[in-house]
Amino acid sequence: MNKLLFLFIALFFASTGRSQNSESSNSSGLILTRKGVEKIQANLGQAPLFDTTLQQVKKDVDKEMAGDIEVPIPKDLAGGYTHERHKKNYATAQKAGVLFKILEEEKYARYIKEMLMEYAKIYPNLPLHPAERSYARGKIFWQALNDSNWLVSMSQAYDSIYDYLTAEEREYLEKNLFYPYADFLSEENPKFFNRIHNHSTWGNAAVGMIGLVMDDDELVNRALYGLEDAKIDKDARDNDGGLIQQPGQDAGFLANINEAFSPSGYYTEGPYYQRYAMYPFMLFAKALENKRPELDIFDYKNGVLIKSVYALLNLTDADGEFFPLNDAQKGMSYLTQSVVMAVDAAYLYGEEDPSLLAVAEDQGRVTLDDAGMAVALGLANNEQQEFIKKSIELTDGAKGNKGGVAILRSKDYNRLYSLVMKYTSQGDSHGHYDKLSFSFYDDGEEVIQDYGFARFVNIEPKNGGGYLKENTTWAKQSIAHNTLIKNETSHFEGDFDTGSKYHSEKYFSDFSRPEVQIISAKEKNAYPGTEMHRTMVLMQNDIFRNPVVLDIFRVDGEVSSQYDLPFYYFGQLIDTNLEYETSERLEKLGAKNGYQHLWKEAEGVSEGENLKFTWANNNKFYTISQVTQEEDSIILARLGATDPEFNLRRDPVLLTRKKEVENAIFATVIEPHGSYNPVTELGNNSYSQIKKLEVVLDNEEYTGVKITGYNEKQVLIILSNQNNSPDLEHRVRINEEEFSWEGPYTLIEK
Amino acid sequence: MNKLLFLFIALFFASTGRSQNSESSNSSGLILTRKGVEKIQANLGQAPLFDTTLQQVKKDVDKEMAGDIEVPIPKDLAGGYTHERHKKNYATAQKAGVLFKILEEEKYARYIKEMLMEYAKIYPNLPLHPAERSYARGKIFWQALNDSNWLVSMSQAYDSIYDYLTAEEREYLEKNLFYPYADFLSEENPKFFNRIHNHSTWGNAAVGMIGLVMDDDELVNRALYGLEDAKIDKDARDNDGGLIQQPGQDAGFLANINEAFSPSGYYTEGPYYQRYAMYPFMLFAKALENKRPELDIFDYKNGVLIKSVYALLNLTDADGEFFPLNDAQKGMSYLTQSVVMAVDAAYLYGEEDPSLLAVAEDQGRVTLDDAGMAVALGLANNEQQEFIKKSIELTDGAKGNKGGVAILRSKDYNRLYSLVMKYTSQGDSHGHYDKLSFSFYDDGEEVIQDYGFARFVNIEPKNGGGYLKENTTWAKQSIAHNTLIKNETSHFEGDFDTGSKYHSEKYFSDFSRPEVQIISAKEKNAYPGTEMHRTMVLMQNDIFRNPVVLDIFRVDGEVSSQYDLPFYYFGQLIDTNLEYETSERLEKLGAKNGYQHLWKEAEGVSEGENLKFTWANNNKFYTISQVTQEEDSIILARLGATDPEFNLRRDPVLLTRKKEVENAIFATVIEPHGSYNPVTELGNNSYSQIKKLEVVLDNEEYTGVKITGYNEKQVLIILSNQNNSPDLEHRVRINEEEFSWEGPYTLIEK
Repeated sequence: MNKLLFLFIALFFASTGRSQNSESSNSSGLILTRKGVEKIQANLGQAPLFDTTLQQVKKDVDKEMAGDIEVPIPKDLAGGYTHERHKKNYATAQKAGVLFKILEEEKYARYIKEMLMEYAKIYPNLPLHPAERSYARGKIFWQALNDSNWLVSMSQAYDSIYDYLTAEEREYLEKNLFYPYADFLSEENPKFFNRIHNHSTWGNAAVGMIGLVMDDDELVNRALYGLEDAKIDKDARDNDGGLIQQPGQDAGFLANINEAFSPSGYYTEGPYYQRYAMYPFMLFAKALENKRPELDIFDYKNGVLIKSVYALLNLTDADGEFFPLNDAQKGMSYLTQSVVMAVDAAYLYGEEDPSLLAVAEDQGRVTLDDAGMAVALGLANNEQQEFIKKSIELTDGAKGNKGGVAILRSKDYNRLYSLVMKYTSQGDSHGHYDKLSFSFYDDGEEVIQDYGFARFVNIEPKNGGGYLKENTTWAKQSIAHNTLIKNETSHFEGDFDTGSKYHSEKYFSDFSRPEVQIISAKEKNAYPGTEMHRTMVLMQNDIFRNPVVLDIFRVDGEVSSQYDLPFYYFGQLIDTNLEYETSERLEKLGAKNGYQHLWKEAEGVSEGENLKFTWANNNKFYTISQVTQEEDSIILARLGATDPEFNLRRDPVLLTRKKEVENAIFATVIEPHGSYNPVTELGNNSYSQIKKLEVVLDNEEYTGVKITGYNEKQVLIILSNQNNSPDLEHRVRINEEEFSWEGPYTLIEK
Repeated sequence: MNKLLFLFIALFFASTGRSQNSESSNSSGLILTRKGVEKIQANLGQAPLFDTTLQQVKKDVDKEMAGDIEVPIPKDLAGGYTHERHKKNYATAQKAGVLFKILEEEKYARYIKEMLMEYAKIYPNLPLHPAERSYARGKIFWQALNDSNWLVSMSQAYDSIYDYLTAEEREYLEKNLFYPYADFLSEENPKFFNRIHNHSTWGNAAVGMIGLVMDDDELVNRALYGLEDAKIDKDARDNDGGLIQQPGQDAGFLANINEAFSPSGYYTEGPYYQRYAMYPFMLFAKALENKRPELDIFDYKNGVLIKSVYALLNLTDADGEFFPLNDAQKGMSYLTQSVVMAVDAAYLYGEEDPSLLAVAEDQGRVTLDDAGMAVALGLANNEQQEFIKKSIELTDGAKGNKGGVAILRSKDYNRLYSLVMKYTSQGDSHGHYDKLSFSFYDDGEEVIQDYGFARFVNIEPKNGGGYLKENTTWAKQSIAHNTLIKNETSHFEGDFDTGSKYHSEKYFSDFSRPEVQIISAKEKNAYPGTEMHRTMVLMQNDIFRNPVVLDIFRVDGEVSSQYDLPFYYFGQLIDTNLEYETSERLEKLGAKNGYQHLWKEAEGVSEGENLKFTWANNNKFYTISQVTQEEDSIILARLGATDPEFNLRRDPVLLTRKKEVENAIFATVIEPHGSYNPVTELGNNSYSQIKKLEVVLDNEEYTGVKITGYNEKQVLIILSNQNNSPDLEHRVRINEEEFSWEGPYTLIEK
C-alpha cells in the first residue's frame, strides 16, 4: 500500500469524528504496544516462559487456521455448536493478532481480516439470539455478556491489524460491525451496560476498548462513565433476581471499580466472580494505561486494581484453588487465563513484586505482551520469591465498612491449614445467605466445605450450563452452609433485598501470634431480635498434633427457638460416641428453605457429654468434639432429597440441633489428627487428642471455653462478649480462680 | 571373643541336633549372603537406588534405636499400642540386621541382641493373646498370622547376628524363644500351619526360615511338607467361614505353591492377598535358594513363583494399583514392600528382565540384599525398559483348569483403558459371589467399579481393623458386583461350600487385533438350571472417540424369573433419556442378599428404546447405552441402607431389571467420550456418539448386536452361542443379508 495514500486516508478519517490528539496510525497499540513489541522481539529466545507460551499459542492458532473460517448464524446455548464456534473465533483472532504483531507474518493479519469481514457481513441483519433466557440477550450469543467477551477480544484483534487494513476496510468494519456492536451493548442495552455488576464491567471494557482502537472519545467516555440518560425501570431485575440498579448509583467502568472492590481489593461477589471480572478490569485498565496514560488508572482508588490481584491470590487454598464463597465452581484456580493476565499486569504496572513471579511460574504461562515479557524476563533472571499466604482480613464494601472475610493460616509439617470465615455483606446477586459461615482446609483439601454453586458451567445437558434451580432452593440457603439456622429458616428469610441492606460486623481479630489466631464477628440482622456471635480460633498447641479450629458460636434470641449448626464434612464416619438410630427408610429433614434437600440418615440425643465424631477423608483422620447439652439432637444427614434431576452431590453433614431455647452456645473443636496409607496399611493417630471440652463460663458478659488434652495439658480462652476495646481491663472468676486481662479476650495455656 | 573357643562351641552345638553338613558359623547367610554383602560393599556409592534405600533405612533404624527397647506384654488389637510396638520391633530388628551386615557397625548387632533377649525373657511365660477373635490366636499378637510375621523378620535379624553372638547366647535364645516359638506356630497350631492358605504360607516360612538359620532339618522339612500327623477336625473353619482343610490335601510350603498358584501365576484369592502372600513365598524361596540350592525352588512347578510376580504386576491399573478382585483394599499397589521384594527377587532369580527394572524404578527403592543390589546396578546402568501391560488371560486353579481372569487393554491418547473380566473359581475364603463380573478402568480411574472389601485395615475404631459384618452381607454378595442376579439371590445362594465346588468356563477369547479384543465365558452352576453367558469386547472404532466396552450378557433359564444387571459407576448423573420418578422417601431395594443395603433413589420403566445414561466423574464424561425391552425397570440406587455403623461408601448404581422372563439378553455399551476442565470451564464431547444399539439376532445358536454411530458408521458382531470351535463355519441371515465366517464370532465394520 502506498504510504502517502495511507497517511492521507488516515488523516482524513482522523479529522472526521475522531478526537484531535489521536495518532492516525494507531501505532501506540492497545494492549501490545510498539515499545512492547520491540522489547519482545529483542528478547525472543531469552525468556523461556514467554517463548513456550508463544509456541503454544502459535500451535493452537495454526491448527485452528488450518480449517475454514466459520461464522455460523447464532443458535445454540453455551456448550452448543454455534456458541462454542464463536467463542473459538474471537479467542483465535485475538491470539492471531498477537502473533501478527510479534512474528510479523501476514497470514495472521489476513485471517483476522477475513473473519471480521464475515462478521461484518452478518451483523447488520442479526436479530437477537433466539434463546430467550437472559434478561439481556445478545446477538452472537444468548446473553450480551458473551457478546461483550467477543468485543473485548476482537478489539485487540482489530487493533493488531489496524495498520494492515486499508482505510476503506476499516470504515467498512467500523460502520457495519464495531459501531453498531458497541451501540448494541450500551445504548440498546442499558440494563446490561449501566449496572454495578461484572456483566457491566465486561460491557464497559468492550465498548471502551473498541473506542480506544477507533480513538473515539465518546465511546471511551461512555465506557468510563456509563450512559448518561439510561432509562431503567427501578424494579428491573436480572435472571438471578438481582436488582439492576440501586437508586442514585453511578455507572461505567470507574464506578464499577469504585463500587465493586473494597479498599482491600475484595470483590463483593466473591473470588470466583472476581477472577472472571478481573479480566475486563485489568485488560481495559492496561489499554487505558497505554492509550490514556493521563488517567493513571492503576493508581485509581489508591491502586485498588493491583490490590485486588493480591486479594484474589490470597483467596486460594494451598493448591491455588479459590475458596468457593457465594456462587462459585470448585476447582477454579489462579491458573485460569484471566488471573495469568492479572498477575502479569500487577507485576509490570505494580511494583515488580518478585513474589508474583512465583505465582506466574506456577501458572506456567504469561500474556504475550509487555507485561508477560517483563514477568518472563524476571523468571529467566531467577528473581522469583515465594508467594507467602499469610493470615489476612479483607474488608467488604466500596468503603470497606461492610464486614469482610478473614483467612487464618497455619503451617505445619509443610501443610498449610486455612480457616476462612465470612462476615461480609450479601455479595450482590451471587451472594448466599451464609452469615458467619466458615470453611476449613487441610492444604489443598476441604475438611469442612462450602458447597459452592449448583451449576455445571458449559455442560449443556445440565440446563445449558446455566444455574440450576437447586442453586436457589439449596446452594444459597443458610442450611447449605456451616452456620447457624434458626427455626429452619434462612437468614433474612432468604430475601435478597433484605439481605442486601445489612452486613455482619467484625468484633475483633488478632493474628499477632502464629500459634493462636483469632477472628470474632457478630450478626444482628439475619434474624431480627436475635444476635449471633461467632469466634473462631486457629491454634497450634501441645495438646494437638496439627493445628485445630476452636469454634465458639453464641446466639442470643428473644423467644424460644430451634437452632441448628451444621458441619459439612467429607468422607466416611469412622467412630463416634453418639448413641444414634438409623432409619429403615429415609425421610427428608424438612420441607423447605433447603431442608427438603437433606435425607436424615441417623439421629441421636445427647446425654450432656461431649460429642465425639471422627471421620476419614482422603486417608486423613479428623474429629469434631463438641460441648452438648442434654436433649440436644445430633443428626447425620446427606444431601440428595427433592433432587429430581440428580443435580446435587450426595455430601454428608453433621448437625447439632438445640430445641426450644432462647439462647445457646455451641463450642466445637475441629481437629485434624492422623493419617492412613493404603499401601503400607499403616494408620497413625486415628484418635482425637481431646479428653474434655468445657464451657466453663457463659453469660452476657463473658464466655470461657476450656480444652483438656489426654496429656493433661489445658488451654482456656475467655471472651468479653460486650466490649471489644483493646484497652479495657477485665476480671472474672471461674471455679474459684481469678483471671484478669486487657482487651476482648485472653488465652491461658497450662 | 576367642576364635578358637568360638569354633569349639560352634562345633559342639553343630554335633548335637544339627544336620551334619551345616556350616558352624552360619556364614552363608539366609537372605543376605556373604557374597552378596561383598558385592554390596564393593558397589556402595555406585547404585543410587540402593544407596538411597540404605540411607532411608539407616535413618529409620537410627531414629528408632534412639529410644529405649520396649517389649510390652501383649494386649491390643491391630492399631493398638502393643500391637504396633511389636510390629515396629520386628521390622526394626530385621533392618538393623541388614545394616549390621553391610555397615559392620556393632551397635546394630547389640540392639538386636538386646531386643531378642527381652523377648526370650517373656516368651516362655506368655499365655495366648487375650483377644479371642481369631480361630488361631497368637501370643505376641491377636492372631498367629502376625506372630509368623514376627518370626519371618526375626529369623533374618537372628541370622545377621548369629556369628556375633556367643554360643551360650544362641543356645539361650533358641531354647527360650525360637524353638518354642516355632513349635507354637506349627505343632501347637495345626489348624493354622497345615492349611492351603496364605496364613499357612506365613507360618511355613516363619518356621522354615528359623529352621534354616538354626540349620535344623526337622524344622525345615516341617515347613516344606507340613505337619505329618496334624489332628484337625474336618469341619473346622476359620473366622471368614473358610474350611480349614479339604479332604486329602497336602500341607506345607511346597503344597501351598502347588495349590495356591495356577500355572500362569494367578493366586486364587486375588491380587490383594497375592501381594501379601508373595512376601513369605518369595522370601522363604530366597532363603531356600541360598541355603538349600539343591531344591531349585525357583524352578519348582515350572518356575511358577517368578511367573506369579508377572501375574501380579499385570493385575494392576495404569497407576500400579491392584484390581480389587475378591476381598481387597483399594489403593494397595505394587509400590508395597512385599512387591518390591518380589520384583527384585524375580529380577535376580529370574532372567534379569529389564522391564522389571522399570517397575523397580517406579517403586523407588530396593531390598537391601543381593537382589536389590542387582536391580539398583541395572538401573544405574540404564538398562530398564518399559513394563508394557498387555491383554492377558490368567488361568485359575492349581492345574489351570478352573476358569480365570482376563484383562483387556487398549491404549489411546496415552491413556490405558483396562477391562477386567472374572470367570474364576470361588477364590477360597476371600472369594466373592461374582461370577462373570467385570470392572473397567480409564487409566488409573475406575469407570465401573468392583466394590472391594468392607474393612478398614489397621483402623482400630472400625472393628479393630478386621472384616466388618457388611463384608458378608454386602461386599461378597452378587448384587455388590457388575454381574447378573437372579431373583435377588446371590450366586450359589451365597453358600461357600457350593461355590467352592464350581468355576466358570472360558468360552473363547481373541486378543489378536488391538482394536477389537474379546473375551467370552459361561457360568452354568451359579443358578442351577440357568446358563449365563457373557461376552465382552474392548474396541476402538471410527464411531467412538475412545475405546468402549460392548457387553453382551445372555441368560438362559428354565422358569420365569427376575434378572438384575447392575453397573456400579462413580460420580454424578449428567443426562438420561429415561423417564423416571424419584421418591419422597427412600426405601430399601430389597430385604436380603445385599439388596437391603441399597436405597432406591429413582425408577423408570422402559418403552423399549435404547437407554442412554450419561454421567461425569473426575471431570470425564461416560455414557451407558443399553438395549432395553418394554417393561424393563431401570433403577437408580445408592449404597448405604441397613448400615448402622456407616461402614459402607455411598456409591451409586444403575440397574436394569427384567421381570418374569425365562431368557434374557442385555446388550450394553460403556463409552468414555469427553472431558471437562474446571479451570478453563471448557467441556468437550459431553454426548455419546452412539445413535442406535440393536440386538439384530438372538436365538439359541446365534446372537448379533449392531452399533450405529451418529456418523452413520456401523459395527456388527455375531456370536456363535453353542460352538466355540475356531474352525467351524457359520452362516446366518440377518434382515436379508447373509453372513458367513469361521470360528466363534465375526465382527463387521461398515
